[in-house]
Amino acid sequence: MAETLRIALAGLGTVGAGVIRLLGENGGLIAQRAGRPIEITAVSARDRTKDRGIDISSYAWEDDMTVLAAREDVDVVVELVGGSDGPALALARKALAAGKDLVTANKAMVAHHGLELGELAESQGAAMRYEAAVAGGIPAIKGLGEGAAANRIERIYGILNGTCNYILSEMESTGRDFADVLGEAQALGYAEADPTFDIEGVDAAHKLSLLAALAFGTRLDFDAVATTGISRIRAADIAQARALGYVIRLIGLADCENADGSRHLFQRVAPYLVPVSHPLAGVGGATNAVVAEGNYSGRLLFEGAGAGDGPTASAVVADLIDIARGNVPPPFSLPVSQLEASAPADPGNRRNRAYLRFLVADRPGVLAEITAAMRDAGVSIESMIQQGQPGDEDDPVLVAMVTHEGPEGAVERAMELLAGSPSLADEPLVMRLLG
Amino acid sequence: MAETLRIALAGLGTVGAGVIRLLGENGGLIAQRAGRPIEITAVSARDRTKDRGIDISSYAWEDDMTVLAAREDVDVVVELVGGSDGPALALARKALAAGKDLVTANKAMVAHHGLELGELAESQGAAMRYEAAVAGGIPAIKGLGEGAAANRIERIYGILNGTCNYILSEMESTGRDFADVLGEAQALGYAEADPTFDIEGVDAAHKLSLLAALAFGTRLDFDAVATTGISRIRAADIAQARALGYVIRLIGLADCENADGSRHLFQRVAPYLVPVSHPLAGVGGATNAVVAEGNYSGRLLFEGAGAGDGPTASAVVADLIDIARGNVPPPFSLPVSQLEASAPADPGNRRNRAYLRFLVADRPGVLAEITAAMRDAGVSIESMIQQGQPGDEDDPVLVAMVTHEGPEGAVERAMELLAGSPSLADEPLVMRLLG
Repeated sequence: MAETLRIALAGLGTVGAGVIRLLGENGGLIAQRAGRPIEITAVSARDRTKDRGIDISSYAWEDDMTVLAAREDVDVVVELVGGSDGPALALARKALAAGKDLVTANKAMVAHHGLELGELAESQGAAMRYEAAVAGGIPAIKGLGEGAAANRIERIYGILNGTCNYILSEMESTGRDFADVLGEAQALGYAEADPTFDIEGVDAAHKLSLLAALAFGTRLDFDAVATTGISRIRAADIAQARALGYVIRLIGLADCENADGSRHLFQRVAPYLVPVSHPLAGVGGATNAVVAEGNYSGRLLFEGAGAGDGPTASAVVADLIDIARGNVPPPFSLPVSQLEASAPADPGNRRNRAYLRFLVADRPGVLAEITAAMRDAGVSIESMIQQGQPGDEDDPVLVAMVTHEGPEGAVERAMELLAGSPSLADEPLVMRLLG
Repeated sequence: MAETLRIALAGLGTVGAGVIRLLGENGGLIAQRAGRPIEITAVSARDRTKDRGIDISSYAWEDDMTVLAAREDVDVVVELVGGSDGPALALARKALAAGKDLVTANKAMVAHHGLELGELAESQGAAMRYEAAVAGGIPAIKGLGEGAAANRIERIYGILNGTCNYILSEMESTGRDFADVLGEAQALGYAEADPTFDIEGVDAAHKLSLLAALAFGTRLDFDAVATTGISRIRAADIAQARALGYVIRLIGLADCENADGSRHLFQRVAPYLVPVSHPLAGVGGATNAVVAEGNYSGRLLFEGAGAGDGPTASAVVADLIDIARGNVPPPFSLPVSQLEASAPADPGNRRNRAYLRFLVADRPGVLAEITAAMRDAGVSIESMIQQGQPGDEDDPVLVAMVTHEGPEGAVERAMELLAGSPSLADEPLVMRLLG
């Protein structure tokens, strides 16, 4: 059997511990499939003495994790520290600069610094792989960058954040409101103490930006992801959507259009109404799913656990097996120098159906005001429902409507016409229907 | 840019023509992703003059397709002829023996001769790839052999035949009977004039045997796949299943158990009752889906178009891109010499719930006879329904039941006890519930 592939592991949280357990438990078959043994030689984490339920005594220890990158007995650095900058980025840079391969689960770091790191990897002839950074255990990066490589990808979208999907699924099945379910999810450990990155869609946006670069051969552009979270969704929205034949999912979606002779990349993370007949409507709980629409493959769907130590470790070690086998395509499927710069697409001309929800004062003329704004902005209403609330008569009333297909810009204009109206108790909520 | 990868294409049916169109239409991005151009240099098919809607005048033509394997200007032979033996096999052998890489969509050939061809490929340092042979455009071979490579696979199963799934979906949505829907599918071109390979499960069994070898590292054993088709399923079975919360799908399923110190491979293609909440229940029409359960990844699902020229061409060209990139793992993820011989598992001890359907004479004592056989064989009945038919009173009556979980052997014994009973108008139909 060929030479051992020697790994340094930085970060011994749940995923790091999972990688150690996985390489132990499945080590025999991994060596068979990889064609050579994969062994950890050195590790680093914040606290050497913490009890992680795993034995790390046989590995060399480094207090300074960036020193891992300089060790002679290390071929691949596995970065599981997290954070877009700081020690993770310092380690990644040093590892690649030293010509070592890099495997990371760090979506934030790749979203912010992927181009720099990818260029560094290419200039050093090193691999940079990040299967675990998107959709946990699902081989979505591989499916897109290799499995669908023959296709012009027309659209990529999916459920990329397990916490949001868990919360929305729970709201759906229990009828409870957002804050209530979030609190429970935090108590159960399904949501972070500070859940902002998850519920405001930032985590999904990190992942979407990686998928978009891979799918369209465009330069990573995380800053251009238009991001809306799920914190304003009410139980009543989910009930209305259901009555119309939809469920609500936080979707990351990207496509690439040609306009004025250049390519424009559209990237959005937002709650969408998904038809119950769509495969993503059946994806509940913390499950993730990625859909790629190729011009020859048609619709491909990859579904599985989006987080957790086992699935994430499975993706990390799949990257290690690929490296051991010598399967090291460019980090973004194309060399970084060939990725195309693309302007962000103007969403105003995109045609969609939209769900609009207003909380309004219960008094004469309010509906006329809303519908006049729609008319003046050129928005055509397909269906509308006004729902009195069984509380105080001063409580606001919920008005929900679904528009016919039309340009997003028209809906935006209608919202501008209504902005600041004393009839509205809250900013209107706009969600698109997944077409 | 590096050297061109030069392709010979044998077989110019719909898939072959699709590959030519795909390499033309997406040639620029394929060259970018592959790192070098992929070009067809020579082709062969039965009839040179047939109008295929594509221009083949720029390719060298060979009347004898096996001559493609000897051409100096060919690096990879793409075999799209079909058939387990005959010209396809002759070409595959000659191509590999000449040290050329082989890409094939031919599940029957790989199921019957994959070990021989794989050994030949390994001995010649050639690649042998067959992504298009399983589940059309879905990168299921890649997902399993690379994406899930870190896992001990506990079970693999899926919807592997689009024709059967189309027929079952149509029966489900229209309430029509099997023969009726099959006839329509044939008229529409969704089913072959001789549909035996599809509807009797042979095609799915070919694919399952490949997935099982990849998943479990066992030697290909197509002959050991226990195969039952869908031709005995009635509209009434689908209605009964639905009432119980299930849909019927033709499932290929394999797992590997350790017993008596050795590994036993279980491979079955049969109609199963699938809970409506299971993702496979939502897979309708000609769509395929493959589920792999890994000990770290958990449940992974890959879904997409299971056939058609575009999706199949997408998978063929993905293999070519991998070869161009130098990603050539062993044909069955492990070298053939390391694949383990495994005895077929005895299904008798497997524990399942089962759906049993009888057509019985409408006279006293028949139910007592059936239930006595169940009791004597140790089969515990969970629910039962007897449905009179609104026809002649001499028409047989349908009795359907679902058993509690128990060993399959017990159900088999009950069927033996009832065999030949004059009360039964037809052989009982046994389907398992997917657990």
